[in-house]
Amino acid sequence: MDPSSPTPADQLYTAVLSDILDELGHREQAMRPFVRPCDESLAMFGRVRTGLYMETFSLRDGENPYELEIRLVDDLKPGEVSVLGCGGPTERIAPWGELLSTAASARGAAGCVTDGLVRDVRQIRAMKFPVFHGGIGPLDTKGRARMVEMDTPIECGGVRVRTGDMIFGDVDGVVVIPAEVADEVVTRARRKIMGENRTRDELRAGARLGDVFAKHGIL
Amino acid sequence: MDPSSPTPADQLYTAVLSDILDELGHREQAMRPFVRPCDESLAMFGRVRTGLYMETFSLRDGENPYELEIRLVDDLKPGEVSVLGCGGPTERIAPWGELLSTAASARGAAGCVTDGLVRDVRQIRAMKFPVFHGGIGPLDTKGRARMVEMDTPIECGGVRVRTGDMIFGDVDGVVVIPAEVADEVVTRARRKIMGENRTRDELRAGARLGDVFAKHGIL
Amino acid sequence: MDPSSPTPADQLYTAVLSDILDELGHREQAMRPFVRPCDESLAMFGRVRTGLYMETFSLRDGENPYELEIRLVDDLKPGEVSVLGCGGPTERIAPWGELLSTAASARGAAGCVTDGLVRDVRQIRAMKFPVFHGGIGPLDTKGRARMVEMDTPIECGGVRVRTGDMIFGDVDGVVVIPAEVADEVVTRARRKIMGENRTRDELRAGARLGDVFAKHGIL
Amino acid sequence: MDPSSPTPADQLYTAVLSDILDELGHREQAMRPFVRPCDESLAMFGRVRTGLYMETFSLRDGENPYELEIRLVDDLKPGEVSVLGCGGPTERIAPWGELLSTAASARGAAGCVTDGLVRDVRQIRAMKFPVFHGGIGPLDTKGRARMVEMDTPIECGGVRVRTGDMIFGDVDGVVVIPAEVADEVVTRARRKIMGENRTRDELRAGARLGDVFAKHGIL
Amino acid sequence: MDPSSPTPADQLYTAVLSDILDELGHREQAMRPFVRPCDESLAMFGRVRTGLYMETFSLRDGENPYELEIRLVDDLKPGEVSVLGCGGPTERIAPWGELLSTAASARGAAGCVTDGLVRDVRQIRAMKFPVFHGGIGPLDTKGRARMVEMDTPIECGGVRVRTGDMIFGDVDGVVVIPAEVADEVVTRARRKIMGENRTRDELRAGARLGDVFAKHGIL
Amino acid sequence: MDPSSPTPADQLYTAVLSDILDELGHREQAMRPFVRPCDESLAMFGRVRTGLYMETFSLRDGENPYELEIRLVDDLKPGEVSVLGCGGPTERIAPWGELLSTAASARGAAGCVTDGLVRDVRQIRAMKFPVFHGGIGPLDTKGRARMVEMDTPIECGGVRVRTGDMIFGDVDGVVVIPAEVADEVVTRARRKIMGENRTRDELRAGARLGDVFAKHGIL
Repeated sequence: MDPSSPTPADQLYTAVLSDILDELGHREQAMRPFVRPCDESLAMFGRVRTGLYMETFSLRDGENPYELEIRLVDDLKPGEVSVLGCGGPTERIAPWGELLSTAASARGAAGCVTDGLVRDVRQIRAMKFPVFHGGIGPLDTKGRARMVEMDTPIECGGVRVRTGDMIFGDVDGVVVIPAEVADEVVTRARRKIMGENRTRDELRAGARLGDVFAKHGIL
Repeated sequence: MDPSSPTPADQLYTAVLSDILDELGHREQAMRPFVRPCDESLAMFGRVRTGLYMETFSLRDGENPYELEIRLVDDLKPGEVSVLGCGGPTERIAPWGELLSTAASARGAAGCVTDGLVRDVRQIRAMKFPVFHGGIGPLDTKGRARMVEMDTPIECGGVRVRTGDMIFGDVDGVVVIPAEVADEVVTRARRKIMGENRTRDELRAGARLGDVFAKHGIL
Repeated sequence: MDPSSPTPADQLYTAVLSDILDELGHREQAMRPFVRPCDESLAMFGRVRTGLYMETFSLRDGENPYELEIRLVDDLKPGEVSVLGCGGPTERIAPWGELLSTAASARGAAGCVTDGLVRDVRQIRAMKFPVFHGGIGPLDTKGRARMVEMDTPIECGGVRVRTGDMIFGDVDGVVVIPAEVADEVVTRARRKIMGENRTRDELRAGARLGDVFAKHGIL
Repeated sequence: MDPSSPTPADQLYTAVLSDILDELGHREQAMRPFVRPCDESLAMFGRVRTGLYMETFSLRDGENPYELEIRLVDDLKPGEVSVLGCGGPTERIAPWGELLSTAASARGAAGCVTDGLVRDVRQIRAMKFPVFHGGIGPLDTKGRARMVEMDTPIECGGVRVRTGDMIFGDVDGVVVIPAEVADEVVTRARRKIMGENRTRDELRAGARLGDVFAKHGIL
Repeated sequence: MDPSSPTPADQLYTAVLSDILDELGHREQAMRPFVRPCDESLAMFGRVRTGLYMETFSLRDGENPYELEIRLVDDLKPGEVSVLGCGGPTERIAPWGELLSTAASARGAAGCVTDGLVRDVRQIRAMKFPVFHGGIGPLDTKGRARMVEMDTPIECGGVRVRTGDMIFGDVDGVVVIPAEVADEVVTRARRKIMGENRTRDELRAGARLGDVFAKHGIL
Repeated sequence: MDPSSPTPADQLYTAVLSDILDELGHREQAMRPFVRPCDESLAMFGRVRTGLYMETFSLRDGENPYELEIRLVDDLKPGEVSVLGCGGPTERIAPWGELLSTAASARGAAGCVTDGLVRDVRQIRAMKFPVFHGGIGPLDTKGRARMVEMDTPIECGGVRVRTGDMIFGDVDGVVVIPAEVADEVVTRARRKIMGENRTRDELRAGARLGDVFAKHGIL
């Protein structure tokens, strides 16, 4: 899957991707509902780059607490999404804000997903950069948390995520698509969307749900 | 109470209905705050039809997991509201989405309330169909939950609800009005709203709260 | 600090105030993330007036359950913010609504912050009065809660607050600024905002985060 | 019901009392499971005296923070049980310990129930004084909480309780018996216990559960 | 695996079984820590029989609310363990007590595991019948819950369980051993226990942990 | 304070230490109530050595996941207590068990405190080694967590703890005594215990609580 190709984010949505992943036996791919979009009007689709955070209670001598997250952001490629696991829900770890959004956006990144907190919500919305978060709060991470692993398998929002997986987010939430099945999932999702269009049209015209489901098998 | 008559949803609101229910000794009628509107600008008022869901971990042979919810939606009458109890808050049971909204709307239903999750939020908002939910997520119920009772007494959002009760929702939440007192509650609510208008006008004009409360007894 | 002077609310924001408070060693000043603005587009800055609520289960003979909260609201001075501690998150204590907002606004108050519930959200938004709350619900406090202390030290949203402290809120949350450091915090915050502007401009121009952080030391 | 008569605590138990209360339509009388006995081998039965606590964050000038709880304990009559509502579960309000147990025991009180914390667990166990609590912790209430109402209706462990109700506790939990039905509940409970004895004997002898339930209607 | 053979419960323990399951890549087999033994001195080992419960809010006409659970208990074979999924933690569903323990014990069952509540704890302990539960409370299920599936795959205490799996419990918790790997797990566990004995002896003699771990690779 | 001197653990208790810390203005020193003793009959008193854990989701190449915890245990001095911060309550991080207890005990350590899980509870109890934990479960840390800091300031059970602080635990919970005030706290606690003895004797003799409190000022 080439994440830098024109993203199909506008033509897909999480619900249909989740249904297809269910069909393929991947039933634990939707992040928990506390992970919400910063801007409900934006959809996001891209290739995962993981970061893992831990809570800390002191700064070590000479430590740059942002060292690893700076390295991750500066290494983002076009179409990539930083996925930052904070063991959320959390009230203390807030790994993302305006300046990181600005830097990531300048590298062509497709978005950011975290189960930690974000800040600078107004500015992030103004940038139209897609961010999905586990809550909003003004705290900085300095002295409260530290990114300790980059590109390792993590959990974020209750879902296992690896660098190289594809990730999709919209107003309904965030779905992780394992790299191995990404192409198949997108292909099947497009097909299912067409079926849903027919179902919707018949329902609008007043058809009974029972008849329509018997005919198309879609709900 | 005739639910198919021109709905007074625009002229009432949950806070005043809740106050009147308090006065009449029905003090447990407001759903818990995690039940929120899909669209904060819509009010909803209608007659309850209940559905009760259970969590499942497998499909039974030949089972149509949507059987009972299809029957409920196809049986909705104009002015009715499907109220779906999922034991929420839940992260797994998501009984409602775009296609059910389309079908219910086509039958003239007045809305849907659930303490489970909903999906297809963007499409539901576009339809202007009032949905109140216990969270947002992309999951389908298939293999995760099943509707097992229809038109039995249930709990939804922490409130006991029966088919035939009236239900009102707006940006402040959802209030269940027991069938026996529905007419009285609406009559009294209209009267109280007029009193509040006077109170508000005097407060805007700079009157002291203590004086206004002493005079009108409304807060 | 003169709370009735032209408020600098538009030129400050919680994230930078929180960073400055961190620098000064006040690291527990941001309210917990469940405290959210009623209207995300409004910022609020003012001098704290505290009220402490308790849950109740009956009315005492002849009790006016609103007595103390009426006294607090009628005593608000221009630029003051009522900060109402309800031990939130709570599903039962709802100390604020439209009429109190109207009265407070008429006295020139700068806003209200509570870790309890609010109601009349639509009307409060229409007034453009800044309210930050711990949830939304239609319940009245009568017979459920009572304000029992006024102008004593309390906790609200997990932060210790005293009458005379300064409080700032915006879309990112609410920050309490202890009276002793209020002037210094605002002065430093203005200075930091200028530094952030430079950092942002360089990042937008494509500079690497590592280089920019090495140069400005701001993230 | 005469609480000072020889208590039948040894011959009753919460499960059968809860069943009888269910039969009589009082279905919300069992405290939530976080309320546990300090000593699992002790049963308790007595007449309720209520106290209501609130969380505080400062001491008022000249305040004796224990004033009202001292008054309640000194007023306990033989066979009475202090029931202290703290809005539990809580991690901060700890209204009971060794010295209050000593004083209450010296007055002939039958026990104490609280949804707050207790301390001095070792000493309380040594006294064989029945205490049911919402958790264990070493904190004193001074500056953290205050008893503010005595003998008013309260909630404790999720159950509404009034002075004059009867209360029973054992290893299975705590059940509140409304004053109006106390005699009937105890009479019926004794009768049900005899039926259960027969059922148990037949099951031990290897009878099938289906047959035994068909015969005795007890489970 | 023959569950009716002399049970090795005394010679195994959950920690070593959990380690072996980890080694074999089954890393989600330990129930959540809220599932605790009724009697910490008893170990339990047996073959799973599943039951799935749902919460209810009314009795249906002529319904025997215990029907399916009676059928399950009467069908238990020697060495089997009833595993009852209630979606716990729950405060309302209490599927097990003394009479069911008596009946199950009379059939030779090896124990009961539920993430719901149990009651009659004193009597169950007196019987020495191993029960693991999600909490203690006096409530009966009648009108609150109903067993709706028997021998289907379920989740209990956060672990997926199927009829035919093996299950082990002791003071450290409960571990589910998938049927396919049961023999291998027990064989490997016995071997590991011997290695731990050597490690323990050396540590007791004062050896450094680093040296002992380097030598035996066990911790 | 010399932690290797004959420990005064038997003559002190957490409640009185907590009261003295309150008097000295250290009011956040009691761990949250979910931290419980493995054996309620043991008291523990010693000097703190901290360890900080993070959750992990993979093993790094060649990683010994126990490296740092082995180093900490092998470095324990007589009278020291390992205090392991896991961000508890947690269901996944279980840093302590029998073998570490054996090794720590062999070095003369006074105990272990963690807000994570422990396993091997039966064996730890048999050793009479004092362990205080945030829950019980059979999981090993390997691939789930890693100790990442040693002897840095941490939080454990909600309390800030530093290497060198003193820590006391018994059936009522765990109290952290900052190094600076350790001597004073112990001296004052001994004095207060004598006052409580007098109070208790008078209460047992039937004195009114109000009179006794007026006389001794102790509750």
